[in-house]
Amino acid sequence: MNTQGISMNALIDHTLLKPDCTADQIRKLCAEATEYAFASVCVLPWWVELSAQLFNNVCTVVGFPLGANTTQTKVAEAVALVRAGAREIDMVASITALKSGQVDQVRADITAVVDAVAEHGGMVKVIIETCLLTHDEKLVMCDVVSAAGAAYIKTSTGFSTGGATLEDVALLRKHVSSNVKVKASGGIRDRATAQAMAEAGASRIGTSSGIAIVQG
Amino acid sequence: MNTQGISMNALIDHTLLKPDCTADQIRKLCAEATEYAFASVCVLPWWVELSAQLFNNVCTVVGFPLGANTTQTKVAEAVALVRAGAREIDMVASITALKSGQVDQVRADITAVVDAVAEHGGMVKVIIETCLLTHDEKLVMCDVVSAAGAAYIKTSTGFSTGGATLEDVALLRKHVSSNVKVKASGGIRDRATAQAMAEAGASRIGTSSGIAIVQG
Repeated sequence: MNTQGISMNALIDHTLLKPDCTADQIRKLCAEATEYAFASVCVLPWWVELSAQLFNNVCTVVGFPLGANTTQTKVAEAVALVRAGAREIDMVASITALKSGQVDQVRADITAVVDAVAEHGGMVKVIIETCLLTHDEKLVMCDVVSAAGAAYIKTSTGFSTGGATLEDVALLRKHVSSNVKVKASGGIRDRATAQAMAEAGASRIGTSSGIAIVQG
Repeated sequence: MNTQGISMNALIDHTLLKPDCTADQIRKLCAEATEYAFASVCVLPWWVELSAQLFNNVCTVVGFPLGANTTQTKVAEAVALVRAGAREIDMVASITALKSGQVDQVRADITAVVDAVAEHGGMVKVIIETCLLTHDEKLVMCDVVSAAGAAYIKTSTGFSTGGATLEDVALLRKHVSSNVKVKASGGIRDRATAQAMAEAGASRIGTSSGIAIVQG
């Protein structure tokens, strides 16, 4: 993949998910996304309506960051946010269900959100929180996310014990279906790291350091 | 307040909110809550149904831990969880709205959840995440939570940069209405700390170290 020059901008989900961020910071985020032609702004649900007035591709988060909301809640939240202007929904899988051997429920949870969001014209990235998973659990999640028809598998929330690693990005790229893309997120703060993630197979980079990355 | 002996048990919300916890750990939590006569078990939404089969006072979390879900999502999540068996809803206030000067929206958000939960027979604790607030913002939140008629104001999620302090518990106790109680949570791991929190004005202690605390 060519990751030089302008192409890097189009990989970046320009992200601000701090619980104490302000409306002014969201406005600045959207202005920067316009200026740098980033792929999306990724914001907390509270700011979807405002962001959709200021930038044309709004990403938001559902069941975030713990993933342990009920499926009913995740579906309702996702549909409401697409109706409010979000086009991309980064949902967190039910890690607690996976750890409890409830793989069928993990699959049903993801499928319900993917289907509901698709009906309303949006697309879903599924966050599996790689830092909390064993190697085998990562492979299970590659199968589940592929079967559910999600657009992306995403490494991390940025709120747990670790972020994206090159090894995990390569592992996910190898094991998900060819129609599922990989989003790397968590701890990506410079151009060299972002380029390495792209070369390992990431089609999107979730980061709050997008400007530093593209300015290199 | 007498915080000696058995009375400490009745102050404790026996808490397990890790995103990678298992069903077996939830079953153990509920068995321990029965054995030690804790005030409640505090669990993630995914485990409310199971917990309600195993213990008679289930607490869960809404808009947790970032508080930046929409009011619509928080209300729907809270009502669904009370219907699923939760009696106590620990909701996170919209810190991002507070930081943006949207005090009216913060108040409306809390009031909507408090009213909806009350209609369904539950009660609400409002988490204000003290570690992210200035002194003045803490006082604003005391007024807002009191006016909304919440049962409790609660210091912390346990997922941010800090937990309960004695100074904050005393400050909240002094400034909320007399009919609003204070829950201290985040980083309380031993009996001496729990007793000091109770003496500073806490009527509930949210902790994952409940057994260590009551065993002294």
